[in-house]
Amino acid sequence: VRHTIQVRVRYADTDAAGIVHYAQFLAYLEAARADALRALGLVRESIVAFSLGTMVLDATLRYRSSARFDDLLDVAAWVTEVSATRFRWVYEIHRNSDRTLVLTAETEQCWSDGVGCSREASLPPWLDEALQRLGDVSPS
Amino acid sequence: VRHTIQVRVRYADTDAAGIVHYAQFLAYLEAARADALRALGLVRESIVAFSLGTMVLDATLRYRSSARFDDLLDVAAWVTEVSATRFRWVYEIHRNSDRTLVLTAETEQCWSDGVGCSREASLPPWLDEALQRLGDVSPS
Amino acid sequence: VRHTIQVRVRYADTDAAGIVHYAQFLAYLEAARADALRALGLVRESIVAFSLGTMVLDATLRYRSSARFDDLLDVAAWVTEVSATRFRWVYEIHRNSDRTLVLTAETEQCWSDGVGCSREASLPPWLDEALQRLGDVSPS
Amino acid sequence: VRHTIQVRVRYADTDAAGIVHYAQFLAYLEAARADALRALGLVRESIVAFSLGTMVLDATLRYRSSARFDDLLDVAAWVTEVSATRFRWVYEIHRNSDRTLVLTAETEQCWSDGVGCSREASLPPWLDEALQRLGDVSPS
Repeated sequence: VRHTIQVRVRYADTDAAGIVHYAQFLAYLEAARADALRALGLVRESIVAFSLGTMVLDATLRYRSSARFDDLLDVAAWVTEVSATRFRWVYEIHRNSDRTLVLTAETEQCWSDGVGCSREASLPPWLDEALQRLGDVSPS
Repeated sequence: VRHTIQVRVRYADTDAAGIVHYAQFLAYLEAARADALRALGLVRESIVAFSLGTMVLDATLRYRSSARFDDLLDVAAWVTEVSATRFRWVYEIHRNSDRTLVLTAETEQCWSDGVGCSREASLPPWLDEALQRLGDVSPS
Repeated sequence: VRHTIQVRVRYADTDAAGIVHYAQFLAYLEAARADALRALGLVRESIVAFSLGTMVLDATLRYRSSARFDDLLDVAAWVTEVSATRFRWVYEIHRNSDRTLVLTAETEQCWSDGVGCSREASLPPWLDEALQRLGDVSPS
Repeated sequence: VRHTIQVRVRYADTDAAGIVHYAQFLAYLEAARADALRALGLVRESIVAFSLGTMVLDATLRYRSSARFDDLLDVAAWVTEVSATRFRWVYEIHRNSDRTLVLTAETEQCWSDGVGCSREASLPPWLDEALQRLGDVSPS
């Protein structure tokens, strides 16, 4: 399941070159993750638990075209891999007005024990189920 | 005219106390200003010109209650004073779910000549008209 | 005691007008507060407790002159009022190179019980002592 | 040449999990790039021209350990590849107190013509020279 949110670029998101600052996109991706869970019907407590309880292990961002103040962006997010303890999201951001590709990205996350990735504990069942639904993962 | 936008608190907006960081609200207020102009029908070029061409002279923020990740906030903005060169916005932010007052604020802005407030030039007519419509200002 | 830190303006701090975004200054002020406590010799645990345990009640910012990318700023902070439960900081930011006044500001903070200002509890003694030393407050 | 700057984690940089937000590191890396050029003796105009004139094509971040408020971080940056139009920086962030590795990262940048990477123009000579000095690149 590919989930898309719309983000209006705020003036605060821009930098002196007049474009969205390269760090700001990570906040957009994060917002798309949270909204994807919300769209599945997860309650607020679960969305908060997801955001607090998972660690980002790596992020890869490919900047394809600049975005500017007041642009309306479509930020799509979906899940590509879910293992017992880790999962990977993929993202695409397009400018809504002309479908220009602005950014593609991937992040890998794990379930944390507060210090690092939990080695023993697997993903909570509610999260595993949600991630399966957000991925193109055939049930075994 | 009182204009209200809805802002979903992003995880990136929070700080280590688990609440929206005190600087972040200024980005919400700015987004409300831009959207108020958009709602009046101003074209993108005007919204960009407004954001680039005006300087904030002062900002006063009163933090009434904390906001948290995933809160849906109603950010209301309106104009209270418009002089030949300056104008003042007032803001109220409420949590949507229970109408708790989160923040009240005011900002004063002027039309800039690129260095400071323009002393000679008055507000561009399109901006003056827009601000008049956003204020409770009786025409003289 | 007036405490001053130096802040180099990062590119990320700027906006599309090429100047430091109006919200960013609140992060500079916050950094000056923390460093003022550090300069008094407070241990890290106290600085963290201060930052997590106090709430900002209001902030007033007066933007005097723009700051730009790569500017070196002197951010001065001191305490003007300390009551049993509240205290007020005052700030001045100057551009280091030419002593241009960039910003003046004030914030009022209280000691929090996690929801709002603590009504019963007064400031912890270590904080009260630190704030007294940072203020021009004559000992009674 | 490996250039290192020290960054004190600000409270504003943290998120609700009490750690440095995953987007914030990109601002630290950017600050290290600018300071590396400053350390080479480049004038401010060149540092501004570098920051405005280059585009980030991709960024890869590997989060190794969390950083927390008040941590002092050593942010090291150096250049690994310089072609006629593109160049690659590599970064390592360590916590100063115990040398824990916090983050490794890479970014690729190009010289921009304002819209995308300039196809015709090569890097300005002053930038090419600076990047050569920041890299372990043998002159051909």
